[in-house]
Amino acid sequence: MLENYSLPIQKALKKIKADVGDRIKVSKKGETYEGLIMPRIKLGDTNCIVLKMDSGYNTGVKFETGVKMSKVKSSENKKEKPIQLKYDKNKPPITIIATGGTITSKVEYKTGGVITIEKPEELLKSYPELQELANIKFVTPFRKMSEDMNYKDWQIIARTVAQELNSGRGVIITHGTDTLHYTAAALSFMIKGNKPVVITGAQRSPDRGSSDAATNLICSIYAALSDLGEVGICMHGSMNDDFCSFNRGVRVRKMHTSRRDTFRTLIDDPIAKVWTNGKIEKIDVRRKRDDTEVEVDDKFEERVALIKVYPGSYPDILDYYVKKGYKGFVLEGTGFGHVPTQSKNSWIETIQKITKKGIPIVITSQTLFGRVNTKVYANLRILFHESGAIPAEDMLPEVAYIKLGWVLGHTKDIKKVREMMLTNIVGEFTDRSKIRGD
Amino acid sequence: MLENYSLPIQKALKKIKADVGDRIKVSKKGETYEGLIMPRIKLGDTNCIVLKMDSGYNTGVKFETGVKMSKVKSSENKKEKPIQLKYDKNKPPITIIATGGTITSKVEYKTGGVITIEKPEELLKSYPELQELANIKFVTPFRKMSEDMNYKDWQIIARTVAQELNSGRGVIITHGTDTLHYTAAALSFMIKGNKPVVITGAQRSPDRGSSDAATNLICSIYAALSDLGEVGICMHGSMNDDFCSFNRGVRVRKMHTSRRDTFRTLIDDPIAKVWTNGKIEKIDVRRKRDDTEVEVDDKFEERVALIKVYPGSYPDILDYYVKKGYKGFVLEGTGFGHVPTQSKNSWIETIQKITKKGIPIVITSQTLFGRVNTKVYANLRILFHESGAIPAEDMLPEVAYIKLGWVLGHTKDIKKVREMMLTNIVGEFTDRSKIRGD
Repeated sequence: MLENYSLPIQKALKKIKADVGDRIKVSKKGETYEGLIMPRIKLGDTNCIVLKMDSGYNTGVKFETGVKMSKVKSSENKKEKPIQLKYDKNKPPITIIATGGTITSKVEYKTGGVITIEKPEELLKSYPELQELANIKFVTPFRKMSEDMNYKDWQIIARTVAQELNSGRGVIITHGTDTLHYTAAALSFMIKGNKPVVITGAQRSPDRGSSDAATNLICSIYAALSDLGEVGICMHGSMNDDFCSFNRGVRVRKMHTSRRDTFRTLIDDPIAKVWTNGKIEKIDVRRKRDDTEVEVDDKFEERVALIKVYPGSYPDILDYYVKKGYKGFVLEGTGFGHVPTQSKNSWIETIQKITKKGIPIVITSQTLFGRVNTKVYANLRILFHESGAIPAEDMLPEVAYIKLGWVLGHTKDIKKVREMMLTNIVGEFTDRSKIRGD
Repeated sequence: MLENYSLPIQKALKKIKADVGDRIKVSKKGETYEGLIMPRIKLGDTNCIVLKMDSGYNTGVKFETGVKMSKVKSSENKKEKPIQLKYDKNKPPITIIATGGTITSKVEYKTGGVITIEKPEELLKSYPELQELANIKFVTPFRKMSEDMNYKDWQIIARTVAQELNSGRGVIITHGTDTLHYTAAALSFMIKGNKPVVITGAQRSPDRGSSDAATNLICSIYAALSDLGEVGICMHGSMNDDFCSFNRGVRVRKMHTSRRDTFRTLIDDPIAKVWTNGKIEKIDVRRKRDDTEVEVDDKFEERVALIKVYPGSYPDILDYYVKKGYKGFVLEGTGFGHVPTQSKNSWIETIQKITKKGIPIVITSQTLFGRVNTKVYANLRILFHESGAIPAEDMLPEVAYIKLGWVLGHTKDIKKVREMMLTNIVGEFTDRSKIRGD
């Protein structure tokens, strides 16, 4: 826990048998600071002891000659009893693949920050009712907050999911919410099969009164045991604790920083509503559970960039990435998919030059709602018909980004890439947007 | 109109007195193509004549030795009578500053494409009722589709607005919808004064039955003559033709590619509803019209980049822009404002390095809804408290981008930039998000 402090600090703290969380006194030039030792990161002055004062504020005390330290009290974290997993042969088997995030975190009351719980199994301590619904096994292939997930993590999750599903268990993945929809899109393409793959998380940690974790986990268990056959995010469908939306993994997006019903299916309908009493209200079910083995097809090309276009943006950024060896781009254009066209700022010429090299450029819209159009305006006809840009239909930018990485993992042939991007593989675009407003 | 064709083609067409829109026959190797000459852009093979065939498809015919051309018929565009602007001393004066976009375009039925109308005054031919409401004057400082707007255009618009307002006229700006909200944000910061500045556009051109132009213009006239005192976008508030929302210029975003009620005020309330019968329903009015002169404060630093962060994104992109002389960044983080933190992908270290150079980095959230949080998670505390990133509260990413450009136009001192970014100047963030979902 002290690892990011300078070696002299580590040494001095070990001498007084103090670790992160312990209360110490630091005296320096006649002044004395008393507080809890905070963990720190490798940035800034690592030769500075960070203390959480009783005021609630953090103070950094430079560790220099003359500084004296003494331990006042050990951390108040008491060792808790290990969780007992129950087994009841009449209950169905569920595997929770725990990767990290708020759902397996708790507020550290002394600091006010959210920290990861040591063992995901602790969830069952907060929610013993989960064991009434299923025999739960935990698998933790890695622990990570969602801002740090990448394609290698998606591959590990996909393989773990297949293994658990093929051994006859229902599967729930717990995950931080920030990039949950990127992971959901990746798993949608990587996992081939007709079984429910239920991804969930929480906006508030389980120890908070307003936590959404219980509702999300209970509904996720029902979804994972259901006859649905798709990959989706199962989280709060409203501001109440009554039901969750099971959102198709390729049509969903985190739409609010803090609301519990942050995940919304855009344009399209969600797969189902799952109520906390186990009722499943099917809305738009495309695939049902069957007995075929689940397979994993997780080849992925990481060198894809997702770039937003805006007034004052220049296309040299594309050249930069091409020089770095990038193999494809997804742009968030404006409106129907426009990019600036004028001479000193011609995205269109740069796009044509790059697609001629065989590097695909896919255009989405930053409006999020609605469909890219390739015809209405002259500039669009040029962009899509002469410059070779690939229209993403009404795919969400984040989904188009994941899909392009997955497609490029399978082929670099630009014609095949175009064909695959324009093929609706797992419901990632609608054939005709449902809300058109015509 | 032929300007982007190769010189030999231009010469050959002039010889037969044919121009864009005329019907010609082109014979080549025994085959004959008949169709309308299309305009073309400078890309692709400019030595290729593009014809709109009767089938509706375009065909390109390579212009080479042996090609024969003859004119069949002139373009069917007849010269129309010029518009007469009426003057009635009992009606209030309105200036429409026409910059381009769909609202001053029409479908060219022969091609199916949308083209700019020659004179914005033609709007009055489609909507004679506008002249019943006001004495309308048109000013066209430039003509541009909105995908090509930049800060210089915003400055020209701001100055034109001030001039017209200070001469006692109401002001409406017509503009393409794609980047209308970027322009609205820019004018919100650049125009100092308490008079309505009404920006509008159309999702469908005025010659289409479903056009929103009439409703938008009528409501905009009422808004421009009202006692409101803010900059806003006045466009369809629902899918009907009954009212428009007058959305505060710094809280609004284009949210759908094609719907007429595409502009939505996010999180906050719009300023007012404006009904087509002239009724103004005030919702959240912050400034009322007064008699003080309007001033323009349009200094703007163009070298700001708006960058989306996502799984698999790397911070070297920031270094690239710094090397190019960029003076500031707005990032679209995930959730509460997170960026990837892990060693080989440490946005946080790069952010700290760059802010230490005095270059500000502002963090928004790609969820669009909700507020950036600087405390809940350890990674956020590091990002905002140790690395020096500036939290954008609940500002929209596009608005934060415009604001940072405007702020950097006034000062490069990173402390002052931080102070200005955290000061609510024209309602660009809420003090506490209204929809919290707690």
